Amino acid sequence: MTTSVAILGASGYTGAELVRLIASHPGLRITALTGERKAGQPMAQVFAFLRHLDLPDLTRIEDVDFNAIDLAFCALPHATAQAVLRDLPAHLRIVDLSADFRLRDPAEYQKWYGKPHAAPDLQREAVYGLTEFYRDEIRAARLVAGTGCNAALGQYLLRPLVAAGVIDLDRIILDLKCGVSGAGRALKENLLHAELSEGGQAYAVGGTHRHLGEFDQELSREAGRPVRIQFTPHLLPFNRGVLATAWLDGDAAELHAVLQARYCDESMIHMLPFGTTPSTHDVRGSNFVHIGVVGDRVPGRALVVGVLDNLCKGSSGQAIQNANLMLGLDETTGLMGAPVFP
Amino acid sequence: MTTSVAILGASGYTGAELVRLIASHPGLRITALTGERKAGQPMAQVFAFLRHLDLPDLTRIEDVDFNAIDLAFCALPHATAQAVLRDLPAHLRIVDLSADFRLRDPAEYQKWYGKPHAAPDLQREAVYGLTEFYRDEIRAARLVAGTGCNAALGQYLLRPLVAAGVIDLDRIILDLKCGVSGAGRALKENLLHAELSEGGQAYAVGGTHRHLGEFDQELSREAGRPVRIQFTPHLLPFNRGVLATAWLDGDAAELHAVLQARYCDESMIHMLPFGTTPSTHDVRGSNFVHIGVVGDRVPGRALVVGVLDNLCKGSSGQAIQNANLMLGLDETTGLMGAPVFP
Amino acid sequence: MTTSVAILGASGYTGAELVRLIASHPGLRITALTGERKAGQPMAQVFAFLRHLDLPDLTRIEDVDFNAIDLAFCALPHATAQAVLRDLPAHLRIVDLSADFRLRDPAEYQKWYGKPHAAPDLQREAVYGLTEFYRDEIRAARLVAGTGCNAALGQYLLRPLVAAGVIDLDRIILDLKCGVSGAGRALKENLLHAELSEGGQAYAVGGTHRHLGEFDQELSREAGRPVRIQFTPHLLPFNRGVLATAWLDGDAAELHAVLQARYCDESMIHMLPFGTTPSTHDVRGSNFVHIGVVGDRVPGRALVVGVLDNLCKGSSGQAIQNANLMLGLDETTGLMGAPVFP
Amino acid sequence: MTTSVAILGASGYTGAELVRLIASHPGLRITALTGERKAGQPMAQVFAFLRHLDLPDLTRIEDVDFNAIDLAFCALPHATAQAVLRDLPAHLRIVDLSADFRLRDPAEYQKWYGKPHAAPDLQREAVYGLTEFYRDEIRAARLVAGTGCNAALGQYLLRPLVAAGVIDLDRIILDLKCGVSGAGRALKENLLHAELSEGGQAYAVGGTHRHLGEFDQELSREAGRPVRIQFTPHLLPFNRGVLATAWLDGDAAELHAVLQARYCDESMIHMLPFGTTPSTHDVRGSNFVHIGVVGDRVPGRALVVGVLDNLCKGSSGQAIQNANLMLGLDETTGLMGAPVFP
Repeated sequence: MTTSVAILGASGYTGAELVRLIASHPGLRITALTGERKAGQPMAQVFAFLRHLDLPDLTRIEDVDFNAIDLAFCALPHATAQAVLRDLPAHLRIVDLSADFRLRDPAEYQKWYGKPHAAPDLQREAVYGLTEFYRDEIRAARLVAGTGCNAALGQYLLRPLVAAGVIDLDRIILDLKCGVSGAGRALKENLLHAELSEGGQAYAVGGTHRHLGEFDQELSREAGRPVRIQFTPHLLPFNRGVLATAWLDGDAAELHAVLQARYCDESMIHMLPFGTTPSTHDVRGSNFVHIGVVGDRVPGRALVVGVLDNLCKGSSGQAIQNANLMLGLDETTGLMGAPVFP
Repeated sequence: MTTSVAILGASGYTGAELVRLIASHPGLRITALTGERKAGQPMAQVFAFLRHLDLPDLTRIEDVDFNAIDLAFCALPHATAQAVLRDLPAHLRIVDLSADFRLRDPAEYQKWYGKPHAAPDLQREAVYGLTEFYRDEIRAARLVAGTGCNAALGQYLLRPLVAAGVIDLDRIILDLKCGVSGAGRALKENLLHAELSEGGQAYAVGGTHRHLGEFDQELSREAGRPVRIQFTPHLLPFNRGVLATAWLDGDAAELHAVLQARYCDESMIHMLPFGTTPSTHDVRGSNFVHIGVVGDRVPGRALVVGVLDNLCKGSSGQAIQNANLMLGLDETTGLMGAPVFP
Repeated sequence: MTTSVAILGASGYTGAELVRLIASHPGLRITALTGERKAGQPMAQVFAFLRHLDLPDLTRIEDVDFNAIDLAFCALPHATAQAVLRDLPAHLRIVDLSADFRLRDPAEYQKWYGKPHAAPDLQREAVYGLTEFYRDEIRAARLVAGTGCNAALGQYLLRPLVAAGVIDLDRIILDLKCGVSGAGRALKENLLHAELSEGGQAYAVGGTHRHLGEFDQELSREAGRPVRIQFTPHLLPFNRGVLATAWLDGDAAELHAVLQARYCDESMIHMLPFGTTPSTHDVRGSNFVHIGVVGDRVPGRALVVGVLDNLCKGSSGQAIQNANLMLGLDETTGLMGAPVFP
Repeated sequence: MTTSVAILGASGYTGAELVRLIASHPGLRITALTGERKAGQPMAQVFAFLRHLDLPDLTRIEDVDFNAIDLAFCALPHATAQAVLRDLPAHLRIVDLSADFRLRDPAEYQKWYGKPHAAPDLQREAVYGLTEFYRDEIRAARLVAGTGCNAALGQYLLRPLVAAGVIDLDRIILDLKCGVSGAGRALKENLLHAELSEGGQAYAVGGTHRHLGEFDQELSREAGRPVRIQFTPHLLPFNRGVLATAWLDGDAAELHAVLQARYCDESMIHMLPFGTTPSTHDVRGSNFVHIGVVGDRVPGRALVVGVLDNLCKGSSGQAIQNANLMLGLDETTGLMGAPVFP
C-alpha cells in the first residue's frame, strides 16, 4: 500500500530532490506538485532531469485536493511556509523543510527571522526533525520541522559530545565549508558560476547565520545549560555537500569513542577510523553522514570533521526519513542508495 | 533468487560504478571483487563512498573461486581483459567493459589497437553490447562486449538515421564534448584538476580515436555499405557526461520522426520535443539518454544532439542492462534511478 | 602623455576587464566610470578585485564631463549603447563593445536584433573592429564597433581560408564551446553555478545566434559572394575562453599553410605546429589566439581549432588594441601580458 | 639595465609562474631555464601558455653557464634544492622557493622533514623571505628562502597581532581552505579532476603539516616565547588561492586597528573595512593579500580572514618581490598587475 503525498514548492532544489528520492521509494506516490510561479507547467519543463517520470503537472496550492493526500512535504521558502501550512486540513501529516518551525521559542524565532511567527500554534506543535535524536516524537508527530542542513551536520558532530560532557562547552568552534545548492535556486550575483567557481569566501560572518538559533536551542537542551557555539560558514565551489570542521577542547580518543558508541547502530551515520577524516565526495547524492576524529598536536585539543549532502541528508532525505517514521515504515526505506562518485 | 557476480577490476571508476548500481539491484549479489595492485584492501579504503556497504575485500583474480560465481563483470584495462577472460571457466557468463571484444574483425582490432588479438575465439563469440540494437543476441550470449561510451552515444543518434536512409552517409560529423571520468583513474598531467578545470581542448584529433573502429563496424552494418564518419572528441571540465553534436545532411523534422518512432518504446532513451536539445546535467548518475533534433538555418541540414552519463549508460549501467537480459530479468532492473541534479 | 578615457557601463564583466587591462597600460588614464544602477558606489564595492587601484567612483552618464575625455569605451548592453552614443559630443573617439554597430546593413540589424536601429548615422560611420583585418580603417575611425567574441574567433579561423578559396564555402561548420562569462553578469537560472557546473549543453541552436549576422556580413565580403555558415555554440563550465572547432572541406596542409602565411607577422595570433590543436587554458587572461589545423581521416576534410579569451581578445582586449591604433600608439601596448595558468 | 636570471626547476607550476611574471618585468631577463626530466624541450612544449614568449629551451642544471647569470630562482623540490644550491658559484644571488631553507634550527628541520640538512652552512646564511617583515635582511642577503604559501598567509594575519599582544597566544586556530595548485604538478589520485572537483576534505590533519614548523619559528620569535598554533588545511576545488580563517581570542575592533596600522603603508596588503571578509576570487593571479576582521557573537572572540594567490604572493610573486629588494629595484616592480576576475 502506498501513501499519497504532495510536494508543496516543487520547483526548487529540495522539491526536486524529494521527487528524485520518492521516485525509487516503494511506499510513497506523488499525487500533487505545487509551484506558484510555474503552475501549469510539467515538471519535465522545470527540471528536465525528471523527464523519465510520470508526474503530475505543477499546480497552485489552492488547486490541490488535499482530501486525496495523506502527507505533504513543504519545500516552500520560510515565512511562506507558515502562512500556507496554517490553512491546510488537519488530517494531513506534514514534513516541513523550511526554517519556519525549527525554533520552539517565539522570541527566538523573532530574533533570528525578524518578525513574529504567523502560526504560533503550529510552532508549538512541531517536532524538531533531527531523526536520530527525536525518533519517538517524530513517530507520533503530525508536523515535523526539518532542520537546517548546516545545523544537522553540526549537531551530528556535537550533540553526543555535549551530552557526554567530554568537551569544553564554551569553546566550540564550527568552521563550515558549504556547497552552493544550499543557497537554493536564487538568482544572486554571488551564486553565478562566473563568480563562485574557482574560489571561496566566508559568509554570514560574525555569528549571524540563522542556523545558530537551532544550535542554541538544541545544544543547550542537550547540555542542560546555555551553549553558544562559534560558527562561520564558507561558500565553496561545489554543488552538493557540507564539510564541517569542529575545533574542540577535549581528548580526541575519548571523543571518538563517544561518537562511535552513539552511532554504531545508526544506518545513516558512519564513523571513520580514528585519525582519519571524511570527504564530501563520498556522500554526494546519498543520505549518509561520515564523521572522523583526530587529535591536534596541541594536547587536549581535537578536531571532529563531518560531511553530508545538504540536499539529501541535510534536507530532502532527512524529510523522507522522518516521513517513513511517521508512516510506520522502515526508517531507511528509499534512502539506502549509494553516493555518486566521481 | 539472486545471482552471484564478480567484478574484475573493481578499483577503477567503472568497477566502482558497477558496485554502486548493484548495491540497489534486487537480483545481483557481489561475491568477489578483484584489483591486482590493491588486493587485500577493503573496498572502503579504495573508494570511501562505498563505506556503508558490506562488500568482500579486493583480491587477486587467481584467488577468486569462480565456481561460486554465475556472472563476471570485467572492468579491466583493454589487452588485460582478453588475457584474463581467455582463462576463465566456461560456465561463467561474462560482461566485458573493456575495448577488447568490440571489434569482430581481427584485422580491424589490430589496426586500432596495434597488436594481434590474444583470444580470437572469444572475439568471435562476443556479442556487441549496444542493448537496444542487439537484444536477442545478448539474451543468448555467454560473452557480451560493452561498447565505448562515445560509440554508444553516437550510435544512438545515428543508427536509426543510417538505417532509414534519411541522412547523407558521406557527411556525418560527430563533435563530442566529454567529461573526464571517461579517461579513467589514470595519473596523467592533463587529467589533473589544475590543468583540466576551467577550460577545454580537442583530443584524439584527426580521426584517431579508437571508438571509430566501432562506428565503422556498426554503422556500415546498419547501412549495408561502408560508412566512415568524422569524429573528434573534446575534453571538458566535468566528471560525468558526454554531449554529442551530430552535424548532418537531412531534413530535421524527418530525422526527429525517425528517432521518435525508433525510441518511443525504449525505457532508457528519451526524445525531446522537436527544436530543443538536451543537457548532460539531466542524465548525470542515471542510465538515461536524452536526444534532441533541430533544423539548421541552412536548408537540408540538421543537428542531432544527445547526452548520456559515460560511467552509467555509457559503461556500467549498460553492462547491468545486458546482464539483466542474459539472466532473464527485466532489462531495467536496478537501473531506473533518477539522475542527480544539481 | 596619457589619454583620458571613460568606461561607460563599468559594472559588467567587460567593463571590469577594461579596467584591469588599462591599469597596466602606460598610455591610458581612467577619468570616468559609469554604471546607472550602481552610480555613487566605489568600484571596489562593485568589483573587489580592483580594490588596489585608485579609481573614480561610478557615476551616471549624464554626470560625466566629456570635455575632459578623449576616448570612451562603451560596455553598455546592446540597444542602450546606440541610444547613449548618439548623444555624446563629436570630439570623442569611441570604442563600442556592444552589438549595436557591428552590422552595416540596417535591414540585417533589424533582422537579428528585432527592431530598427536608433542611430543609423553612427551605424554607417562605424568601423568593424576585427583589428587584424581592419587596421587602416580603425586608425582613421572615430567610432569602432567591437566584434562578438565568438564572431572574432570564427573569423580568425575562417577569413584567410575564405579569401584564399581553399575551402568549400557551402560546407562551413563551426562548433563552439563557450565559457560562461560571455553571457555577462546576467541573473539567469542556467548561469547559476549549481546548474552550469559539471555539465554542458547547446544553446541558440538552429542558426539563431546573433553573431551569425557578423559572419554573414564579413565572410561574404571576404568571399565576394554570400556565405552562410552553420554555427552552434555550447555552454560549458568554465569562465573564460572559447574553443572553436571548424569542420571544413579542404586540404588540411594547405589550410595550415594559408593561415601560417597570414598570421606569421601578427603579434596576437599564434599558429600551432600542423597536426596539433590548442587549449583554452593556454590563453586565459590574455589577448592571444592559438590556432591549430589537423587533417581528418576522411580525405579532403580538415579541422581548424582555435581558442581565445572571450573577455580579453574577444572583447575588452580587442577594444584596447583598437584604441591603441586610433591613438597612434603601438597596437600591442598594454596587451602582452602572459596568460594565467593554471 | 636588466639582470640575467635563471629559473631552476622551470617545469613546475611555480617555475611557470615565475616566467609569467618576469615576462612583464622590466628589470629581469631570463637567461636559463632548467628541468631535468624535460631537458632539451622548448618551454612552449612544457607550458603551451608561454608560447608567445621567446625563451631559452629547458636544460640540465650542469649545462647552465652560471657566469652569465646574476640571480637564480630555485623552484626545485625540497631536498633537491639544498643539494643543488650547495654547489652553485658564490657570486650568484639565490631566491629559493623550496622548503629547504625556511627553518633556521637544524633540529627543527630534521623534525619536520625527516632527515638532516645537507647544506647546514647555507641554512644558517638564508634569510626568511616574508618580505614585509624581513626587508632589511633581504636587501642584504645572498640567499633568501621563500616561505610556504599557507605559512605566508597565516603570518600576515597573525604576526602583527602576536607582536601587539592583543590575542591569546595559546588559542590560535587557523582553518585553511586551499586551492589545488599548491600541491604542484604531482600525479596523485586525489589531485585528479574527477576526485577533487565538486567537493572538499581536510588533509594533513592533527598538526602534521610542515608549514607548522615555520609558524612555530616565526610566531615564537615575534612573541618572544613559544607559540604553537592549531592549523588544519582543507583541499577545495579551485586552482589558485588560499582562504584562511583565523579563530582568535581578542577584541575584534582592536585586532582590526592593529592590522590596519601595520599594513596601511604596504602596497601588497589591503585591509577590508571592519566587519567584511575577502574572497580568493579577488586576488587570483595577483600579488595582493586581502584581510578582513569581524567580531564573533561570543564576546571577546574574533575572526580574521585573509586570502592570497598561492602561486603568486604565496610563492613566485613573493620570490620576485624579494629579488627586487636584493637587486635594489623598487620592490613592486613587475608585481602590480591586477587580479583576473572572473
